[in-house]
Amino acid sequence: MAGEVTVGVDLGGTKCLAVALAGNRVVGEKRVATPDGGEAVLDAIATLALEVAGDRPLAALGVGAPGLVDREGLLRFAPNLPGVTGLPVRAALEQRLGVPVRVDNDATCAAWAERAMGAATGLDDVVLVTLGTGIGGGVITGGRLTRGANGFAGEVGHMVVDRDGPPCPCGQRGCWERYASGGGLARLAQVAAGRGEAAAVLAEAGGDADAILGEHVAAAAAAGDAEARAIVAELGWWVGLGLANLANVLDPEAFVVGGGLVEMGDLLLDPVRTAFATLLQGRAWRPAIPVVPAALGYRAGAIGAGCLGAELLHEKRENSGARTLTK
Amino acid sequence: MAGEVTVGVDLGGTKCLAVALAGNRVVGEKRVATPDGGEAVLDAIATLALEVAGDRPLAALGVGAPGLVDREGLLRFAPNLPGVTGLPVRAALEQRLGVPVRVDNDATCAAWAERAMGAATGLDDVVLVTLGTGIGGGVITGGRLTRGANGFAGEVGHMVVDRDGPPCPCGQRGCWERYASGGGLARLAQVAAGRGEAAAVLAEAGGDADAILGEHVAAAAAAGDAEARAIVAELGWWVGLGLANLANVLDPEAFVVGGGLVEMGDLLLDPVRTAFATLLQGRAWRPAIPVVPAALGYRAGAIGAGCLGAELLHEKRENSGARTLTK
Repeated sequence: MAGEVTVGVDLGGTKCLAVALAGNRVVGEKRVATPDGGEAVLDAIATLALEVAGDRPLAALGVGAPGLVDREGLLRFAPNLPGVTGLPVRAALEQRLGVPVRVDNDATCAAWAERAMGAATGLDDVVLVTLGTGIGGGVITGGRLTRGANGFAGEVGHMVVDRDGPPCPCGQRGCWERYASGGGLARLAQVAAGRGEAAAVLAEAGGDADAILGEHVAAAAAAGDAEARAIVAELGWWVGLGLANLANVLDPEAFVVGGGLVEMGDLLLDPVRTAFATLLQGRAWRPAIPVVPAALGYRAGAIGAGCLGAELLHEKRENSGARTLTK
Repeated sequence: MAGEVTVGVDLGGTKCLAVALAGNRVVGEKRVATPDGGEAVLDAIATLALEVAGDRPLAALGVGAPGLVDREGLLRFAPNLPGVTGLPVRAALEQRLGVPVRVDNDATCAAWAERAMGAATGLDDVVLVTLGTGIGGGVITGGRLTRGANGFAGEVGHMVVDRDGPPCPCGQRGCWERYASGGGLARLAQVAAGRGEAAAVLAEAGGDADAILGEHVAAAAAAGDAEARAIVAELGWWVGLGLANLANVLDPEAFVVGGGLVEMGDLLLDPVRTAFATLLQGRAWRPAIPVVPAALGYRAGAIGAGCLGAELLHEKRENSGARTLTK
């Protein structure tokens, strides 16, 4: 239908971002604060989808959600959305909007977007890793999204990389996310401050080691502080370690690294690449695997959700066309 | 063609096992010692394939090889086959035998066999892990083998699970294989013996801690020795940890565990299941993932190679049929 749009919504812990897509083109964008509670979240997404579509017919909706999204589009568990457990996102939004709805994990959506029109265009075997407050992951193998049996694949942040490491809210110790995320960066800096190092980082945090955030380390590193840069390099080593683990399991053509930490650019990515190249098993006998920054920034999840919504619509129309032909 | 067979060969560090398949039925089996050197290995496989086929026409060959096998069937690197590096297995065997040849990693072949006619029959998302001298892995997602960009996916033994752990020949420290393999079991027992424990295991090894092998621990555990059983339980914890890592990345319907260590049965698998259930992220919100022993035993790699050879033959015949139709 001419003029119609597909909307993608990235449901986050603090805000919901929506984009309207006409083909592969973003023709609208809008965001609202994420409200509390499941019904309020569903209402907010439905309203946002209609608003960003504007006077163009809404043909389909895709939603990227943070946490375990099963294959029926039910959000089983979302640690960053308090009070939201077991929310039937797909079914409830299809009822509210009367269009096909596709729901998937947010990092899975971001991976699909980077492949459709970002840093992984045309690649069939790609792993996207988002380094933010935590770590998200999206896995593409053989040109297809790898969701696993229940839709829970890609929870790469909870690979244990250090069995005696610090405890993780998930219940394990030494999860990759404890090191290679914004929270991990803060922790590495707090440990350094505890040893009497990282004075510039400590100053950024107002002199309170417990108040050190990843942003403080990034600011001091960007300003040229050597100790802060050493902490970022340590972060990079941990990122590289996890990528090497994933490469041993999945052997991708490339890694795409997104999330807030990537705004540090090569200050982070150079140590990541160095560590990764050193840690990769059989590195002398295989092609190098590029580690590239994500291209779609904060919109990747919403764009990917929109693409998945558009694909669902396409499938439904093809199937109904096939049914019509055989009538 | 009536009466024809497909042969699968499992190329191992010490022996080559061949099976002849008629459809899904094993109609012949033969093994020889693995000779030294690339050309000798190729000759041995070709001879073995013709011998096991006997008077039935050989229609296609599949080979499972230990190490990094690229998508052209070139064995890039095989740590357990000294002197064999960069061997063009597929091309050389097609030339020798004049039939379609498919070459893949041995654990990848075993995974495919378990799905075709073993412990994972009918499952679309499965990870096979072989616990032997080292650890091999085969990954099936969405009903397809996941080989990665170069064919090197499934090298799960080199996931780092303990960054300060013991060094691995691969150059890293704390690879999963250092703990959750036959070699790992021996090392755990040697550490226990070094603490003055594990007297029964030490006796099995003739009183020499450095001579302790996994078999010695297994024997003492099977005889009921509590300390040996505690070491096997520790091994099981490490196996469960790695399975939890893989579940977070791949979310399979089931894990199939093969290799020599599985002969310990529930003595090993019970602690594996307990550890895995405890370590799996989001376990309260997802279905349990069964951990089942492999069903095809020592023949899994050869059977899977044969299945892959048969599929290649089928594709080639379909394509040539298609070409004939469009002429």
